[in-house]
Amino acid sequence: MKSLPKGFRGAAIAAGLKSSGTLDLTIIENLGPHFDAAAVYTTNKVVAAPVIWSREVTKGKLVRAAVLNSGGANACTGPQGFADTHKTAEKVGELLGVSAGEVVVCSTGLIGELLPMPKILSGLESIATNLKPDSLDDVSRAIMTTDSVPKVATTSVNGVEFAGIAKGAGMLAPALATMLSVVMTDALLPNNAQEIFTRVTDRTYNRIDSDGCTSTNDTVLLMGSGASGVSLSESEFENALMDICGSLSSQLIADAEGSTKTVAITIKGAVTESEAVEVARACARNNLLKCAIFGADPNWGRVLAAVGTADAQMDALNIDVILNGIHVAKESAPNEDKNLVSFAERLVNLEVNLNMGSATATVMTNDLSHDYVHENSAYST
Amino acid sequence: MKSLPKGFRGAAIAAGLKSSGTLDLTIIENLGPHFDAAAVYTTNKVVAAPVIWSREVTKGKLVRAAVLNSGGANACTGPQGFADTHKTAEKVGELLGVSAGEVVVCSTGLIGELLPMPKILSGLESIATNLKPDSLDDVSRAIMTTDSVPKVATTSVNGVEFAGIAKGAGMLAPALATMLSVVMTDALLPNNAQEIFTRVTDRTYNRIDSDGCTSTNDTVLLMGSGASGVSLSESEFENALMDICGSLSSQLIADAEGSTKTVAITIKGAVTESEAVEVARACARNNLLKCAIFGADPNWGRVLAAVGTADAQMDALNIDVILNGIHVAKESAPNEDKNLVSFAERLVNLEVNLNMGSATATVMTNDLSHDYVHENSAYST
Repeated sequence: MKSLPKGFRGAAIAAGLKSSGTLDLTIIENLGPHFDAAAVYTTNKVVAAPVIWSREVTKGKLVRAAVLNSGGANACTGPQGFADTHKTAEKVGELLGVSAGEVVVCSTGLIGELLPMPKILSGLESIATNLKPDSLDDVSRAIMTTDSVPKVATTSVNGVEFAGIAKGAGMLAPALATMLSVVMTDALLPNNAQEIFTRVTDRTYNRIDSDGCTSTNDTVLLMGSGASGVSLSESEFENALMDICGSLSSQLIADAEGSTKTVAITIKGAVTESEAVEVARACARNNLLKCAIFGADPNWGRVLAAVGTADAQMDALNIDVILNGIHVAKESAPNEDKNLVSFAERLVNLEVNLNMGSATATVMTNDLSHDYVHENSAYST
Repeated sequence: MKSLPKGFRGAAIAAGLKSSGTLDLTIIENLGPHFDAAAVYTTNKVVAAPVIWSREVTKGKLVRAAVLNSGGANACTGPQGFADTHKTAEKVGELLGVSAGEVVVCSTGLIGELLPMPKILSGLESIATNLKPDSLDDVSRAIMTTDSVPKVATTSVNGVEFAGIAKGAGMLAPALATMLSVVMTDALLPNNAQEIFTRVTDRTYNRIDSDGCTSTNDTVLLMGSGASGVSLSESEFENALMDICGSLSSQLIADAEGSTKTVAITIKGAVTESEAVEVARACARNNLLKCAIFGADPNWGRVLAAVGTADAQMDALNIDVILNGIHVAKESAPNEDKNLVSFAERLVNLEVNLNMGSATATVMTNDLSHDYVHENSAYST
């Protein structure tokens, strides 16, 4: 069982929130000497009670513990749902001897149902007596929902440790309604840690897009204990975070619910990077294109039809499409034989050249399969 | 076989463009005495050759004929594709003794393949010798692609006739890439016919949204012969167009590819009508919600998660959801028992009240089913 970075300890329990009887409740405690934090939350206007709570907590940039549960999102649960989140934070604060206002709460699971608070409160009591450094595996498993494998990434730079866990991906595990991630490090955090973390999130988690749906619970939390006593340079720090979040993002998209293909959509020749991202997202969210990829159909016309809906500068008569290395469309017209495209591998490389400028961006997505429809039509009933 | 409005004649043929051997090529001729026209086209930046051509034709508001084919979209076909559209218009012009610049061309079918021009040109010769008033049925059948039934609507007001035909719906028949519609009337068109037609289109065709995908070929054409000699009042004219286009829109969504449910999404209590439409569209394009409806799952949490992504003013804690008459969520929290919701009928009424203002709008969509994935992953291969 892998250890958390210095200054952290954790534990998890099967509190009975998930009918499967697997781990579903976990605490991550930061013992310091520093308690620095940064966080990024969902952009959805409808947010779960734990997001409302945790946004306030992380404004202070001081977080001593995070408590996370699967088996219930505590979203759209009204005043009682918020009271339950508050009570959860208070209980953790009491058990660890810290203020509730320094405890981040994250929940994931079905929307619109109250959490079974007696199970959570007694579960937290058990966890608090059992916190230990070598808990990375348990902690990562406790936030799994429809994930088929836990997602963990670790790295070390100049004597500093980084460890990250994650579940879901956007709305990859959608009835379960969240992508959650916690990244821990024993580095001394730079003053602009939030700025750096936001930038890293934009280029990792925000560039995977399973089905375009934005959840009510998405939370990405960075916690720094400073226990190594080491300050990294800003670029070392950012690179380490890119490693962790990039690895977790790849793991998330590879485990996307019901998917049979991972699609890397690279837009080249855009005027700006944000326009390249816009065009890539328009492709990533196009159901027709995603069905075609599921069907191993090199239907590049759907690529151009998707590109044309994006809010980006383009010359509609001068777009190139390269699908798994075959230059199927040149100047928006047929070029190499599309039947040469092989879909033998899980990874599909879709490259679009707008031939307008020099900006580029890649967004990762997956295909739209029978299993996606099945899993998302059958979950809660 | 129903007749076209006075002043129009048409005919269709199986020219061999569709492998099924059914009708696939048609001409609608306006014999006047007026040749007024209005048109609305796709907002996609990537447009098919016939759209590039026809946009120029209808700028002059004078259209003597429309030629429409199924079995090929002539989209993303480069300079040759445009030359083929031009040649088609010239051939029709020559056969009917009118200018090519007064001939609208519409195509629907697979993107990225050239049309078999010899078949089209000889087909047009046969059609031109056979034009007749009682051709509404044939004309409507010739533009069908994956449509299971032809879509026709007729009405008469004060001695004036209106007849409309349509195929697809947005990207309902998506590999086939288009929604096409032609509305004919023998009324004398008002001077602001384009303005009225645009307004009608916004409230009918633009409020059905099957899968959020926008095609390269969408064209809606209004042709007025003036042969009745009657001028309607502006409101009579607009109401008649609303009848025709509203009926065709309903027929389109009812026949959506692979759908098992039609969903009427009504947003109430919005600050503006356009915000109500935004919120309704966010629901209509949310795959998770559409899968839940396919699964007869009253998962209203997905409704709120979808609503929260819309660019509209809302109080996230004060939204109501009424699903088939059951008030499942009040003030964004559980209310009536969701298990009371019945999905026995094809039509699902989803009502969301934002409780912010008095604006309202309805968007029609359909569920996301196994068959949608199947039809759209298997079409072109």
